[in-house]
Amino acid sequence: MKINGIETRTVYCKDNKLVIINQNKLPFEVEFLELEKIEEVLHAISTMQVRGAPAIGATGAFGLLIALNNIDKSNWKIELQKAYNSLLATRPTAIDLKNCMDIAMDSVKEISDYDTAMEILNLTSNHIADSSVAACRKIGMFGNYLIKDGERILTHCNAGALATVDYGTALAPIRQAFYEDKNIFVYVDETRPRLQGARLTAFELSQEGIDYNLIADNAAGYFMQKGKISMVITGADRIALNGDAANKIGTYTKAVLAKENGIPFYIAAPLTTFDLSLESGKDIPIEERDGKELIEVGNAKLTFDNAKTANPAFDVTPAQYITGYITEIGVIPSGEIVNIKKS
Amino acid sequence: MKINGIETRTVYCKDNKLVIINQNKLPFEVEFLELEKIEEVLHAISTMQVRGAPAIGATGAFGLLIALNNIDKSNWKIELQKAYNSLLATRPTAIDLKNCMDIAMDSVKEISDYDTAMEILNLTSNHIADSSVAACRKIGMFGNYLIKDGERILTHCNAGALATVDYGTALAPIRQAFYEDKNIFVYVDETRPRLQGARLTAFELSQEGIDYNLIADNAAGYFMQKGKISMVITGADRIALNGDAANKIGTYTKAVLAKENGIPFYIAAPLTTFDLSLESGKDIPIEERDGKELIEVGNAKLTFDNAKTANPAFDVTPAQYITGYITEIGVIPSGEIVNIKKS
Repeated sequence: MKINGIETRTVYCKDNKLVIINQNKLPFEVEFLELEKIEEVLHAISTMQVRGAPAIGATGAFGLLIALNNIDKSNWKIELQKAYNSLLATRPTAIDLKNCMDIAMDSVKEISDYDTAMEILNLTSNHIADSSVAACRKIGMFGNYLIKDGERILTHCNAGALATVDYGTALAPIRQAFYEDKNIFVYVDETRPRLQGARLTAFELSQEGIDYNLIADNAAGYFMQKGKISMVITGADRIALNGDAANKIGTYTKAVLAKENGIPFYIAAPLTTFDLSLESGKDIPIEERDGKELIEVGNAKLTFDNAKTANPAFDVTPAQYITGYITEIGVIPSGEIVNIKKS
Repeated sequence: MKINGIETRTVYCKDNKLVIINQNKLPFEVEFLELEKIEEVLHAISTMQVRGAPAIGATGAFGLLIALNNIDKSNWKIELQKAYNSLLATRPTAIDLKNCMDIAMDSVKEISDYDTAMEILNLTSNHIADSSVAACRKIGMFGNYLIKDGERILTHCNAGALATVDYGTALAPIRQAFYEDKNIFVYVDETRPRLQGARLTAFELSQEGIDYNLIADNAAGYFMQKGKISMVITGADRIALNGDAANKIGTYTKAVLAKENGIPFYIAAPLTTFDLSLESGKDIPIEERDGKELIEVGNAKLTFDNAKTANPAFDVTPAQYITGYITEIGVIPSGEIVNIKKS
């Protein structure tokens, strides 16, 4: 991803420091944070300095490396497991965190020597990050085949480079289509309450020079009704075996609107986002976040302090509303996820 | 409506001054503005110091009175017509403005003497305001019959006392059910971009002691899916002969979600909101507002200044999604609006 013309990843490790772009400061300030302690990594995930399912996955793997680098060498296996447990508890909905950390933990399972474990975990966590980028590029390639010249695409939240290690999930096909000079236009839901669409997706598209309009979440239905939207692509935080997909609150709404208006609705996600241990989406835990997100933005009050709120951060879109899943192994039609498990 | 325990109307005329509650300051400050010139009235409507279709209707009628009080007596008929035209141009979507001003203009059509016209217009504009309150109370009474004990009602935007002269349209049945000690709960969409739900509806319900949760617009679908919402009631800005209803952007979305989840969706509106000259909703003009509403709130920036935006303020819900219309003459089932015209 280019930010102000400089090529960077959202998450990477350098000299045993985890470097992330502080997404809570975007688009106003581009701040890179260098995290050296596990506590800093836990804080970064739970306060959403880093967010997006694949980005959190890579952060989890690197987080284990940061933990291992700082813990009691004589007792590293137990300490590393503690770090794993703490990281897993930061955010409940996205499965990439668990999937990526499981790969990292597995890679050192048979190791007893601390220095060897450091070396292996360093290789594994970097491999996870590199694989994530490669998967996103393939998602871009496969998804691009679905995008026609003149396509007008709605996206919700941010499933761009900032939500991944690089390149994005939902934004990957859009990037690819743009690089291939297709005439495309993107509608960006602002995505209340945390405004990831307004702050991150609009920023990413603007940095790339891709034409877009930022709209209120309330306006997506209006533009569908008017025939201005021809396709919807979003990311996901967890996809169950039957195809139900958890994603940012409001995704279900866009999917229902798309179906009602005869518009194809795609989920773009790498295989690390699939949780084939879950039969359906009804068992996906939904994070409830602080109601303050509805009452204030930065220092500005949106409404009175003691307003009573409810603030679920995700919803589950039933498979029946999803046309297909754009993954690094191709576009999987609705209902055929079961074949990933078989293969 | 009670604000901090004091009974008041949203809009009224006193000593040839038009008094309104400045809705741009709520819920942080309760400021009453006294408007003495037509320019102040035009400014109040276009900047949404006063908003809500029935409140704008009464403001239009009182605005004509304010205009007449200040204009050249020798040429009052032409000057009054100019004031009518200016008021009509402030906001295009709500029809109450035109309907109420037409009643006011008709009442002085046959009058030539200025002082008589002042006297008549004073009576007529106050009668329009009183009738509006009476209509809202009947809407409350009829709508209350639809509300069962234990009902969990979603509302969008503000169609409360603040959107009318008093009592409200969508909030009128909710008030009435609450006064009759029914166990009810209200979900309030925050209603981006102008946050009328967060700032006005949550405030009104809180002032009354009615139990509610403020939610992101994105979350209404989630609560419907979970079976937490049993009914939707919103107001309207203009209802066409075939039952299509223009209302705040996002209303169409809630109606589609309600249909998909088998939840009844009602529009509460007085007869002044019906435009029986329009065959369908497709001819209702939709106001496009400044994209700054998406970029900043008060002094706080939500995203970068030059983000590209599209900001329609209303959408049209096709009649097929609307269960019925709660009016001062009873609940009109979908498809039977044509009978109002016949009667």
